Amino acid sequence: MSVELYDTTLRDGTQAEGISLSVEDKLKITRKLDELGVHYIEGGWPGSNPKDVEYFARVQEMPLQNALLCAFSYTGRAGLRVDEDTNLAMLLGARTPVVTIVGKSWDLHVTEVLRVSEDQNLKMIEETIAYLRSKGRRVIYDAEHFFDGYHANPEYAMRTLEAAVNGGAETLVLCDTNGGSLPWDIEDLTRMVCKELNVPVGIHAHNDSELAVANSLAAVRGGAVQVQGTINGYGERVGNANLVSIAADLKLKMGIDCLSEEQVRSLTEVAHYVSEVANLAPDSRQPFVGASAFAHKGGIHADATVKCRESYQHIDPEQVGNHTRVLISELSGKGNVLYKVGELDLGMEVSKEEARQLVQQIKDLESKGFVFEGAEGSAELLLRRNRADYEPPFELIDFMVVVEHRQGRDMLSEATVKVRVGDEIKHTAAEGNGPVNALDAALRKALLRFYPKLENVQLEDYKVRILDGDAATAAKTRVLIDSSIGQRRWGTVGSSANIIEASWQALRDSFEYALLNGD
Amino acid sequence: MSVELYDTTLRDGTQAEGISLSVEDKLKITRKLDELGVHYIEGGWPGSNPKDVEYFARVQEMPLQNALLCAFSYTGRAGLRVDEDTNLAMLLGARTPVVTIVGKSWDLHVTEVLRVSEDQNLKMIEETIAYLRSKGRRVIYDAEHFFDGYHANPEYAMRTLEAAVNGGAETLVLCDTNGGSLPWDIEDLTRMVCKELNVPVGIHAHNDSELAVANSLAAVRGGAVQVQGTINGYGERVGNANLVSIAADLKLKMGIDCLSEEQVRSLTEVAHYVSEVANLAPDSRQPFVGASAFAHKGGIHADATVKCRESYQHIDPEQVGNHTRVLISELSGKGNVLYKVGELDLGMEVSKEEARQLVQQIKDLESKGFVFEGAEGSAELLLRRNRADYEPPFELIDFMVVVEHRQGRDMLSEATVKVRVGDEIKHTAAEGNGPVNALDAALRKALLRFYPKLENVQLEDYKVRILDGDAATAAKTRVLIDSSIGQRRWGTVGSSANIIEASWQALRDSFEYALLNGD
Repeated sequence: MSVELYDTTLRDGTQAEGISLSVEDKLKITRKLDELGVHYIEGGWPGSNPKDVEYFARVQEMPLQNALLCAFSYTGRAGLRVDEDTNLAMLLGARTPVVTIVGKSWDLHVTEVLRVSEDQNLKMIEETIAYLRSKGRRVIYDAEHFFDGYHANPEYAMRTLEAAVNGGAETLVLCDTNGGSLPWDIEDLTRMVCKELNVPVGIHAHNDSELAVANSLAAVRGGAVQVQGTINGYGERVGNANLVSIAADLKLKMGIDCLSEEQVRSLTEVAHYVSEVANLAPDSRQPFVGASAFAHKGGIHADATVKCRESYQHIDPEQVGNHTRVLISELSGKGNVLYKVGELDLGMEVSKEEARQLVQQIKDLESKGFVFEGAEGSAELLLRRNRADYEPPFELIDFMVVVEHRQGRDMLSEATVKVRVGDEIKHTAAEGNGPVNALDAALRKALLRFYPKLENVQLEDYKVRILDGDAATAAKTRVLIDSSIGQRRWGTVGSSANIIEASWQALRDSFEYALLNGD
Repeated sequence: MSVELYDTTLRDGTQAEGISLSVEDKLKITRKLDELGVHYIEGGWPGSNPKDVEYFARVQEMPLQNALLCAFSYTGRAGLRVDEDTNLAMLLGARTPVVTIVGKSWDLHVTEVLRVSEDQNLKMIEETIAYLRSKGRRVIYDAEHFFDGYHANPEYAMRTLEAAVNGGAETLVLCDTNGGSLPWDIEDLTRMVCKELNVPVGIHAHNDSELAVANSLAAVRGGAVQVQGTINGYGERVGNANLVSIAADLKLKMGIDCLSEEQVRSLTEVAHYVSEVANLAPDSRQPFVGASAFAHKGGIHADATVKCRESYQHIDPEQVGNHTRVLISELSGKGNVLYKVGELDLGMEVSKEEARQLVQQIKDLESKGFVFEGAEGSAELLLRRNRADYEPPFELIDFMVVVEHRQGRDMLSEATVKVRVGDEIKHTAAEGNGPVNALDAALRKALLRFYPKLENVQLEDYKVRILDGDAATAAKTRVLIDSSIGQRRWGTVGSSANIIEASWQALRDSFEYALLNGD
């Protein structure tokens, strides 16, 4: 058995609070989705904004290997001839092989929102689809609010589907638009529609009841052969059905074909790529692909994972391109520390006494606001710095930062840094776009002569968290920096009531880690 | 029909990456959970760490209205007499009316992780429970990995449950410990266990397949009368079943009694309170209780919501203590702006032309890195500042910040601020725990004589986001500040390549908003 994946990240996904994609972003995601292997990519709604029109013009130049491109629109408007509807003209102007038309199934929406008669709505559905078919398009029909509509007025909801079939829709997608339905109800109604109408059926779920993935899988059990969703579940309100989890569940749990094994292995990378382009922090708690998805913190779980990999893991993380992590925290036992040391391959033996000391040290630092779970670079440095023979590649003496705003002049940020490398002391100054950038620049200036590879260190992300809200701007601040050289990525941490000091600590660890690792 | 809620935020929830609760935090959450009305509160595992021992000692002084307190432990150890097992002695020392014992159902775990014989495991389960019963405790039995264990060796998995019943367990909780099970399988096996053993059954699910809520509901359909979970779904790896969504789904969707209507209305507050105490940002996309859960961004949805509240909402948000929001963003139509203006009750008419200009202005600012969705304070100021008759309560002229680290001395942060209020110019300086705190202090110093109410403005949270990772520390930075006076809370935004400037903008908006609103 197989199911087609229909991705609407570029349309429904952009309805999420906090997401705004440029045309360039949308093109990048299109390429990535095509690589992933989804069957349909809904690129946008040409009638809704000029950005989507530009997208469809430019995406024509991008040859797709796996996916068919779809453009989205509502049905035409009542009282307007379909061949005079500018919205539909723009839809055709997008020149996609497939178009997706959404229409109303719920009588309440017809009369209260559209404010047309029930018959007018049926006519609009059928005529819109027939017109698009006459222009050579394949048409997928999204039945908005199908489940709610069916419960309000089953007969009318079914007539809207029939109108779509009469118009020539090739697939009927049942939408749980408000996300309020329950899996068993979705399964039953999907099965009923498949039986009654005998056309291919799809499912489009939202996560308002925290059931979107289950509802999508339930529809597949009921006979649905297409699942619509978005990468990471981005979407209006709490989001759409998460296509990442759905693909993994279908393939790995239900044995239903939707992507190849190799494509499933790319899910973690694709999920992170899309969050990166969408400029949202990846959700570390995201099932299958989150950084915490196979992370073990409790001493017993960490210990068991060492003894037997599958003991606390529902799948082999590599099946989705993720990996096991053992965390170091105040809940850690010595086992976590020893595992970590083994993983680092430091070529050092750690005695039980040393491990005990390390755990204590970590607990002390955590009480000061540090965390090492998302900062494995700093955790590694902590282990290394405990070695009697450890020599840090550089040592800070002083720094100063000035940020100035004077009327009629641009902002100024300047930093001075004094560091020792071996017997030499370097004292440098640099300007920057902001205080941390100025510090970064001054520190690189001081170190580059000794360590040319620092030129390639990229600071990828910079996060700040206030640890005790009550203390307002005097609160303790934790800074996490993610850095990279090429494919290697690491996190470092700093903590202080002073955001500049916390940033400095994380910056220093980032450079120190870079100098100790890799080529 | 009714179902009991069993909360394990304080035990399983603390296994989450990034969560660490002090004894004080745990006591606060205990009180809140009791107010919410859950039936059981699992406070911790006394055998695992001294913090939990202290918690159980101190929680004795807290009278609970609704909940029964539980202490958690593994079964005793093979080869050790139960009355000589220090772990069990500490469990009894917690003096809770109920204890929860977890034991192994999966033969793999018995032989590979515990490394004892199958019979020894059965004996441990039965003897541990019988011993605790003899000490007057009610015992809930958590069957770890029940579903995986049943599929590996159904006969043995059932024998472990029988051992628990023979020992005197009052409830058997079937655990999907690795979170890999599917709802229909959970439903069938729960039904089978209820039928075979005829004792009350519970469910304990994890979210690794993004199905924890569905799996919990499916178990209830199969006959489970207890659901274990955590507030906001915090927990090991991707988390436990989210008790917030489960309570709302049971009560509002399935008509199953678990909390009163009034208690369900407190879910949003409880969810935010726990995230606050746990020091995690509330998840705005969280179903039912997230800030985005009833937020409408697309023009069509916003428009329909104005016409008919239920058109794009699965429940009335007030049923869970949440509320509808209409967002202003680049996807907004004029309708969103007009709705927002109505909501603000500014006593101003906004013409269509003004609304159009505002939408354009928002789009321009968003392209510079501002967002107004999480910063309704700044959005309101934007609307107000467009009025010809708007007079800002103060105006910035200059500021400067110095941050200094000198060997052997503490960090120094100093800010100077020059502002105009009416015809007066105030020039002040202040030190702070960090640069933003110093700016905050200098600005308050300048304004307090004119506006004494600023003393009560609390800065509650401060978030920083790097907008274009490639530019590293030179990247554009967005700062969001959440502020409050008493119960009123608002967000403001700043954006600049300079983190201090961005912080300044958000800080200025926070104070300006405070001066324009409320008493």
